[in-house]
Amino acid sequence: MSLPLSREACVAKDAADPLAFARSRFDLPEGVIYLDGNSLGALPRATAQRVAELVQNAWGQGLIRSWNSANWITAPQRVGAMIAQLIGADADEVIVADSTSINLFKGISAALALRPDRRVIVTEPGNFPTDLYMLQGLKSLRPDLDIRIVARDQIEAALDEAVAVLCLTHVHYKSGEMFDMARLAAAAHAKGALVLFDLSHSAGAVEVDLNGAEVDFAIGCGYKYLNGGPGAPAFIFAARRHHAQMRQPLSGWMGHARPFDFVDDYAPATGMAQFLSGTPAILGLAALEAGLATFDGQTLKALREKSVLLSETFIALVETKLPGVFGMASPRNPAHRGSQVSLTHPHGYEIMANLIAQGVIGDFRAPDHLRFGFTPLYLRFQDVYDATEHLSAIMQAESWRAPQFATRAAVT
Amino acid sequence: MSLPLSREACVAKDAADPLAFARSRFDLPEGVIYLDGNSLGALPRATAQRVAELVQNAWGQGLIRSWNSANWITAPQRVGAMIAQLIGADADEVIVADSTSINLFKGISAALALRPDRRVIVTEPGNFPTDLYMLQGLKSLRPDLDIRIVARDQIEAALDEAVAVLCLTHVHYKSGEMFDMARLAAAAHAKGALVLFDLSHSAGAVEVDLNGAEVDFAIGCGYKYLNGGPGAPAFIFAARRHHAQMRQPLSGWMGHARPFDFVDDYAPATGMAQFLSGTPAILGLAALEAGLATFDGQTLKALREKSVLLSETFIALVETKLPGVFGMASPRNPAHRGSQVSLTHPHGYEIMANLIAQGVIGDFRAPDHLRFGFTPLYLRFQDVYDATEHLSAIMQAESWRAPQFATRAAVT
Repeated sequence: MSLPLSREACVAKDAADPLAFARSRFDLPEGVIYLDGNSLGALPRATAQRVAELVQNAWGQGLIRSWNSANWITAPQRVGAMIAQLIGADADEVIVADSTSINLFKGISAALALRPDRRVIVTEPGNFPTDLYMLQGLKSLRPDLDIRIVARDQIEAALDEAVAVLCLTHVHYKSGEMFDMARLAAAAHAKGALVLFDLSHSAGAVEVDLNGAEVDFAIGCGYKYLNGGPGAPAFIFAARRHHAQMRQPLSGWMGHARPFDFVDDYAPATGMAQFLSGTPAILGLAALEAGLATFDGQTLKALREKSVLLSETFIALVETKLPGVFGMASPRNPAHRGSQVSLTHPHGYEIMANLIAQGVIGDFRAPDHLRFGFTPLYLRFQDVYDATEHLSAIMQAESWRAPQFATRAAVT
Repeated sequence: MSLPLSREACVAKDAADPLAFARSRFDLPEGVIYLDGNSLGALPRATAQRVAELVQNAWGQGLIRSWNSANWITAPQRVGAMIAQLIGADADEVIVADSTSINLFKGISAALALRPDRRVIVTEPGNFPTDLYMLQGLKSLRPDLDIRIVARDQIEAALDEAVAVLCLTHVHYKSGEMFDMARLAAAAHAKGALVLFDLSHSAGAVEVDLNGAEVDFAIGCGYKYLNGGPGAPAFIFAARRHHAQMRQPLSGWMGHARPFDFVDDYAPATGMAQFLSGTPAILGLAALEAGLATFDGQTLKALREKSVLLSETFIALVETKLPGVFGMASPRNPAHRGSQVSLTHPHGYEIMANLIAQGVIGDFRAPDHLRFGFTPLYLRFQDVYDATEHLSAIMQAESWRAPQFATRAAVT
C-alpha cells in the first residue's frame, strides 16, 4: 500500500481516484475540510430539491392523499431496502423507524422474547452511551434482567448459557475500534445467545455483512455516514429466520397487521413492519432517501479501500510532521479500525477548537480525544494533507493556547 | 347563534370573519375543499422556505456546528413552548419528541412509576388504537399490569384505589366526542389515580386547559391541527408537580442530565428534557415550528367559536338538504364535540370516495363513518356550504354507485 505523503502525491491520488465523482454529489461549504461525517454527514446536492418537492407538491397539493399517491406509506420499507444493500442484508430485513435509541429498545426486547428462559444481556463499558442508557431503562421495567458489563477483551469469556443477547456497537464511537462481527456472533451462538450490533459508526463506511456474519439484530443511525440529515430516522434489521417468532413491545399502530382496520387488539404485522410504531417521519425519510442515493454506483469494497487509505495517510502524515505529539486511541491496524482516527492530547479540546476555527472540522470527546472521520464519498486526499498542515501549524505555533479556544460549548 | 344557511350568508360571514386573515398563511390547492385537517394539516406558506433554509444553510453550510449555532439542540424545548400556549400549559411543561405512540409509552410509564403500589390502567374500547396497542406492549414487559377497558359511560365507576392511571383520548378520533377533561381528572384524583390525555384530536382545535383541569400527563400529535407535516414529531406534557419524581424508561442519551459527558450510567435530565430519547428530528421540528406559527395572533377562544359555527353550519345544511339520509355519530351538542363531524351511512366508503373525486376531502373510518374536519384557521363558511352542495348532488344523483368508488385503497 503506497501512501501519498506530499501534497502533489495527494492531488495526483485524487485525480486517479475512481470514486472522485461522488464528491460532486455533495454541497460542501467553501473553505471547510469536513472530518465529521461520522457525526453528521454532509448535505447531498439532491436533498434540497427532494425535500422541497415533498413539501410543496406531495404535502401541499396532494395533502392526505399522498399517503398513497406519493408512496409515503411504503417509505420505511423502501428506504430500508436501500440501507440493506450497504449492510449485507436482504431488502425485506431492514426498515426505517424512530431513533437509534428507540430501535435499540425494540431490538433487544425482541431478542429477549426469543430467549424467554434467559435473563442476561452482555455489553461493554464505553459502548455508545445511549445503548447503555436504553438497556438501563428496559431494566427499570424488567428488574429480572441482568446487564453484564464486561471489558472488551472479556466479552467472549462472559458468554454462557444464561446469556440471552450480546449487545455491541460494531465500531466504537470514540476510538474507532471495530469488533470482529462474525467471530462474536459465532461465540454468542455457540452458547445459544443472540447478538445485536449497533452499526451507527459503521454503516456506509466499512464493509458490513450482517447475513454473512449470521447477526440476529442490528440497528443504526441515518445521519452519520448515510447522509440523512440532522436527526434523520434510524433503521433496524432482523434476520429473516426470526421474523415469524419475534415480538417487540413498542407496538404502535403502524406495526399492526391491519392498521387501518382500527381494531382494539394488537396483532403484529408480518416481517419488519412490526418494528414500526407511530406514523413515519416523512420529511426525514425523504432526506434519508436522498442521502442514500449518494451511494449509487459505489461498492462497499471500493469505499472501504479508499477509507483505509485516507486514514492511513492521515496517520502517516501526523506521525511524520508531529512525531510523539499525539497519542493514538485508534487501533494502528486498519483491519481493526472503522473510518475514523482518534488522537489523544491533554489539550485536545483547545486544539480541536483551533482546528474548527480554521475550517478543519472534526470533534472532541472527553477527556482527551480528537476525532477525525474519513468519509470516502466526499473526502479527498488533498483534504487530508491540508488538515495535517493546519494541525502541524497549530501545534508548532501553539496557537491553541489562545483563550478563545478554551471556552467549552455544549456540543461540538 | 345565527347560522349562515345560504351561500350568500356564508360569503358574508367569511367577509366579516376576524380570523379570515389566517387562511392566507396556508398554501391550499385550487379546487379543493379540505375537510381533513384533523388527519393531516394543510401546508403553511412559510414552511417550504423554513425547511429549505434549514437544509441549505444550517445543515449544508453550518454542518455539525449548527447544533449550537442554529439552535438545533434547543428545538424540542422551543417548539414545545409554542405548543404549551395552545394547551393551557407552562412553557417548560411541554417538549417535542418521537411519535405520539412512543410518547404514550413514556407518559404512562412515568405515571405508573409515580404510583408504584398500583397496577391498574383504566381506558376505553375505541380509544385511538395506537394508545391501546402501546398499553398492550407495555404489559408484555410488565405482566403484572391490569389494563381495564371499560365503556365510556362506565369510566368514573371503574376508578378505585387500585387504579394508577386513567388513559383517555380527549376528542374521539372517530365520533369527535369530547370528554370533560376537568371532571375526569378530578374523578381520577379523588381515588389517588393520575390521568393522561391524548390530545391528538384536540390540540389546536378546541380550548384545552391542562393546568386548569389539573391533568398530570398529556401527549399529542404534530401533524393534525398543528400543521407540522406528514409524520411530524409529537409532544408530551407533564405537570410541573411531577417533574422532580417522574422517571420514564425510554432513557436515551438526549434525556440524560449531561449527554455530552458520555458517561456509562444514566441520570435523568431536569424537567421535560428527560422525555427526550434519541437525537431530535431536526427537519420535522423545523416544519412543526412553521406550522405552529400559523396560530400567531389567534386566541383559542376565537378559534373554538369559529370551529363550532363551522360544524353547526355543516350539520344544519346536511339536515336541511338531506333530511334522514345520514346518521349522526358525533354528539349533537357542540359542547361535547371536537372540531369534526362524523356522519354514518351504509355506503359511507363509496360516498366519501365520490366526494374526494370532486375535491371535497374528508375521510372514511370503518364500518360506516364519513369524517369531516373543520379547521378554523383555513376553512371558510363558503367551503362548508359548497361541500354540502357536492354531498347533496352526489346523494340525489346516486353517483357514488359508480364502480370506481367501490375500490378500497389502504389509506384515505
